[in-house]
Amino acid sequence: MDDRQLLSGIKQQIGRENCLDDCAILPPSPYQLVLTTDMLHETTDFPVPMTDYQIGWMSMAVTISDIAAMGAEPRFLIMALGLDREERLSGIVAGADACVRAHGASYVGGDIDFHSELTIVTTGIGYAIHPPVTRGGCRPGDCIGVTGTLGRAQAGLSGYDEYWNSLIMPMPRVREGISLAAGNATAMMDISDGLILSLYDLLDASGFGSSVRSVDLPVIPDIPRTISEEYALFGGGDFELLFTIREREAIPETVPYTIIGKIIQNPEVLVDGRIAKRSGYLHSWG
Amino acid sequence: MDDRQLLSGIKQQIGRENCLDDCAILPPSPYQLVLTTDMLHETTDFPVPMTDYQIGWMSMAVTISDIAAMGAEPRFLIMALGLDREERLSGIVAGADACVRAHGASYVGGDIDFHSELTIVTTGIGYAIHPPVTRGGCRPGDCIGVTGTLGRAQAGLSGYDEYWNSLIMPMPRVREGISLAAGNATAMMDISDGLILSLYDLLDASGFGSSVRSVDLPVIPDIPRTISEEYALFGGGDFELLFTIREREAIPETVPYTIIGKIIQNPEVLVDGRIAKRSGYLHSWG
Repeated sequence: MDDRQLLSGIKQQIGRENCLDDCAILPPSPYQLVLTTDMLHETTDFPVPMTDYQIGWMSMAVTISDIAAMGAEPRFLIMALGLDREERLSGIVAGADACVRAHGASYVGGDIDFHSELTIVTTGIGYAIHPPVTRGGCRPGDCIGVTGTLGRAQAGLSGYDEYWNSLIMPMPRVREGISLAAGNATAMMDISDGLILSLYDLLDASGFGSSVRSVDLPVIPDIPRTISEEYALFGGGDFELLFTIREREAIPETVPYTIIGKIIQNPEVLVDGRIAKRSGYLHSWG
Repeated sequence: MDDRQLLSGIKQQIGRENCLDDCAILPPSPYQLVLTTDMLHETTDFPVPMTDYQIGWMSMAVTISDIAAMGAEPRFLIMALGLDREERLSGIVAGADACVRAHGASYVGGDIDFHSELTIVTTGIGYAIHPPVTRGGCRPGDCIGVTGTLGRAQAGLSGYDEYWNSLIMPMPRVREGISLAAGNATAMMDISDGLILSLYDLLDASGFGSSVRSVDLPVIPDIPRTISEEYALFGGGDFELLFTIREREAIPETVPYTIIGKIIQNPEVLVDGRIAKRSGYLHSWG
């Protein structure tokens, strides 16, 4: 079976009109657009035993989360798929399509290729219906907040089975991202590489440091505190948002959040007053 | 070295502002947009001995060509890069950036990952300053045209060294694509998988067949005609445009073209009256 035959097999899944031309055609946009792309592949990104459906879901979710982290509305998603076995196509596309629909966006095409290792690159376009929130906008004195509970994905990966679904079927914080953009968040990003690493990213972009208190972290309950804190600070795979805002009163009521600290003048990331090691989920070269 | 360190190394190449946030931020668009993505990887797409610079150039060129084939203007390009060796990053990014600039577009970000096999996915957005030209718009009686000379890339791959550069540093037909869209081409696509396969793609999209005359093919000179015709019909890697148009007089003077046949009612692809085998550059599964 060649790539054109494979393509014809998914016309029913994502619509014939999305499989015919060199490009998808999108409407004019009255809004600024945000654009992002993410590469995932089997050995480093898809923990055993994920199903193909879950792999498709997660691949779209990472890109939707990046759009949410700008405070934008996900609109159009495409997927370049390097398949190791053709029979995986249908499940991956079904999961991808479900994730895109669940977040109100459209799956408008992509590319199919053969690859010795399953490799998926998702790309997304969002509408910035509010001014996009970047990483560089925070200032000393801003409150630092996070959505939801931290460390769930790491717990799932570490054997706490009740958190497995948090790891493999992540739900990007799309509505919360838009609400925070509307509420004048000064900086925002997702924490899929871990909280501490994300705070260092804020530092790189803004020049300002951060100080968080471990007692304020929204950790998962029912496991020892030292472990849940470690997961919350350094665990990867959570699709929560990290944001900063001048006054906590400006945070919309619909956003489930916790204030964990403040932006500081000094260019360092502090936890309980001590410099945190720059560690988290990193792809590393030899 | 981890992916954040690698990223900091290319800030100088593509601009710090394109390396900081989860997404690139693009302006509102008064035009329809076209969106496309392409996966390339070492073993199947980059013939030895391509340099990293040439690999970066070609990766962006395939996506720019898809935009050109809609008659749109390439505007924003991003690249997800799965590197097998970190020292390749700089050369690939330099070639990618040069290709994007050469076609008047902007390189606005991407993703970096480690991969056992060099894998590159480029994604592009174009402005449809004229109505986008799809594959499905041709009708019986339309003239079939191609830009330039066919079979050059295949000749380069087959050992005709004077055509090596046509293979590895392709120049997408951006201006020609826009001119043809302005001139009311009825269908258009690029022929990077070969002419015959592309005619079958037109058939799949429109329901109409095509009839071409081999004597009219713009083949490369100076090699035996049987070989040059084979390259022109079935060779891959050319970045020329295949287009259809009601009347050849409507083709803008600035476009170097050859009329090679006509669209026909019957759903078959004919060369000199005989059905052509559905063959060309296909990624194939066992």
